[in-house]
Amino acid sequence: MTFEGMWKELEPLGRAAHGGYFRQPFTSVDAELRDWFRGAARQREMTVEEDAFGNLVAWWGGVATAEVPGLLTGSHLDSVLDGGAYDGPLGVVSGFAAVDLLAERGVTPSRPVGVAAFAEEEGSRFGVACLGSRLATGAWSWEEARELRDRDGVWLGDAMATVLSSPGPGRSGARRESWVARVATFVELHVEQGRDLVERGASVGLGSGIWPHGRYRFDFTGEANHAGSTRMEDRHDPMLTYAMTALAANKQARLGGHRATFGRLEVSPNGTNAVPSRVTAWLDARAASSAGLDDLVATVRAQAEQRAGRDGTSLTVTAESTSAAVAFDAALVDVLGEGRGWPVIPTAAGHDAGVLAQAGVPTAMLFVRNPTGVSHSPDEHAETEDCLAGVEALADVLARLLA
Amino acid sequence: MTFEGMWKELEPLGRAAHGGYFRQPFTSVDAELRDWFRGAARQREMTVEEDAFGNLVAWWGGVATAEVPGLLTGSHLDSVLDGGAYDGPLGVVSGFAAVDLLAERGVTPSRPVGVAAFAEEEGSRFGVACLGSRLATGAWSWEEARELRDRDGVWLGDAMATVLSSPGPGRSGARRESWVARVATFVELHVEQGRDLVERGASVGLGSGIWPHGRYRFDFTGEANHAGSTRMEDRHDPMLTYAMTALAANKQARLGGHRATFGRLEVSPNGTNAVPSRVTAWLDARAASSAGLDDLVATVRAQAEQRAGRDGTSLTVTAESTSAAVAFDAALVDVLGEGRGWPVIPTAAGHDAGVLAQAGVPTAMLFVRNPTGVSHSPDEHAETEDCLAGVEALADVLARLLA
Repeated sequence: MTFEGMWKELEPLGRAAHGGYFRQPFTSVDAELRDWFRGAARQREMTVEEDAFGNLVAWWGGVATAEVPGLLTGSHLDSVLDGGAYDGPLGVVSGFAAVDLLAERGVTPSRPVGVAAFAEEEGSRFGVACLGSRLATGAWSWEEARELRDRDGVWLGDAMATVLSSPGPGRSGARRESWVARVATFVELHVEQGRDLVERGASVGLGSGIWPHGRYRFDFTGEANHAGSTRMEDRHDPMLTYAMTALAANKQARLGGHRATFGRLEVSPNGTNAVPSRVTAWLDARAASSAGLDDLVATVRAQAEQRAGRDGTSLTVTAESTSAAVAFDAALVDVLGEGRGWPVIPTAAGHDAGVLAQAGVPTAMLFVRNPTGVSHSPDEHAETEDCLAGVEALADVLARLLA
Repeated sequence: MTFEGMWKELEPLGRAAHGGYFRQPFTSVDAELRDWFRGAARQREMTVEEDAFGNLVAWWGGVATAEVPGLLTGSHLDSVLDGGAYDGPLGVVSGFAAVDLLAERGVTPSRPVGVAAFAEEEGSRFGVACLGSRLATGAWSWEEARELRDRDGVWLGDAMATVLSSPGPGRSGARRESWVARVATFVELHVEQGRDLVERGASVGLGSGIWPHGRYRFDFTGEANHAGSTRMEDRHDPMLTYAMTALAANKQARLGGHRATFGRLEVSPNGTNAVPSRVTAWLDARAASSAGLDDLVATVRAQAEQRAGRDGTSLTVTAESTSAAVAFDAALVDVLGEGRGWPVIPTAAGHDAGVLAQAGVPTAMLFVRNPTGVSHSPDEHAETEDCLAGVEALADVLARLLA
């Protein structure tokens, strides 16, 4: 099955009528994606390992062991709500296609090569990005994760149980060694989520690292009241405090060259004729350095608190997840890119590669050109020609690592 | 059953643990409220009429006819989401208590006296305020209303069918004369939703009229994108356009002495790590005059469009419902208030009384003091002493109209 063939098979899964993808983890769509993954592995006589957190790895040339650790590639199959087709699946499909290319070239793997599909990379359901890789590496404990619920109040373990036979590390309490300990090197291929490669005229690039990143919940509390009869000067309207905060976050990010987004909001009671009692908004903040990120969040928070004082509202800020800056293995990046002329670019998007890098796995990333730079949107796109160049690059990289 | 006894019976229905009320129409709570209403009527040997839209009237002294039209009082039993106990129910309970008082005084009604409970006054489920009275008076047609759906996509007719045997005017097409044609005068008693009576030191006041009012849906459309990797300058983020609009609406209302509230919001896809593709926000706007209202909405819209131009987003504004200014029957207000010293105050809140007034029914309103002015909130309150003064005032008013 060619790259294009696999892409066609995956294309309809979880796609809404208007073209947006809803591939949330531990749902019926996720079950279809897992079936697809197992089928792709079966066609290549690869052995599938599924861990207790829903991460899948298909091994070529035998399953990695502590004695003979494997090379790992792959990415994830889940999407944001109303997302695109490429973010995640491109890395998984390219992984299988690269294995095919190596086999065609007559390569006999000197060590196992795995293609991974990590669970809940986007955090679209349980709010924690890279949840599968964080659990597999121990960056998050199951004790913490089992407290997570989705928007409908479903516990993580109950959701997982719809696609896994026994989620979590089990009642025995015996802490099994994670399969991640059997990974020698991880190379994740991903569609670029910006236009650096377009500007540099390259189909493929290597990642230098990942910006630090955090998700912060801002709870603005005021006083519910009648939207008609309450005088403007008698109100304590948390919507106003929020609105100013959203504008302030945007302004601070622009000034500092950072990123700040309020893309998720919950309003209570959310009635047309009631001044809200509460507005909860999630800030997604990223910067090139940890100091820049801390400064951004502190400044937005200070401006929000100042406005809350004027509005007679109150504010609490909770960091729901934070990820430190990641620098990929510089020596590895040098080796992989040697003589290829691939641009080396940073990314402000989080990836499972960042989690594995922080767990001590030598890690690199390949990026494939995105003509518009648009991502997390139905309009996300990459040209097939560039995708095939990505497969070729990934096969070359794996071959170098096998040599 | 005394006023306090009836109040105690009603108190637990639809109340959440924290004290807020969720009395949405055509739900199981609504069915309980209707049972309570029928029980209260039965105790007084009043005859209940239920129309095809869910409005209830309990008649004392016989059912009103075209020949002998009735006096009507009452209000509504539904609440906003997370609302208070008084807005609506106070008028219904006071209606029954006033009938008791008249009976105690030995009054034999010279014409039927009705206590009404109008359906979906708040518009909390189907988005149209005073839906029951608008349908009963013909201000809204069933053809328009049957297209309404709630947030979960349930059609109005299907929702009504859970508490009514055959909602809507029926398939015969024969347009039955509405029971509203059998109403000679309507007096609605309501908790005040402001502090005018507190400032004037009065338990009870009469209404002079209702401010014009409108609900406008603002659809802000931008481009979904990755919250991390998309540069701030490459975004078309509708959240920013919305945030500026919310602040502008507040400022314009302050400057003009109007009311403007954005209390309801829907964000799509509403994910933490995605720039939204769409923000839909509902503006509740009110002013002392129609010119003031038009000016307020036009100014907010113009500022929103200007900002949309800068953000690269687009905006459409749809008036979902508008209500013209209402002046209650001045001669009636004079007669009812004569010698009582009741302050005469306007209200910026919509009421079924406004709908009946516009349908040509001579209409007046009585208001009961609200110590904090807070309404549409669990904190909404009136002192029992003031409520009993309201019952007394209502009984006096009905007695004058019967004389």
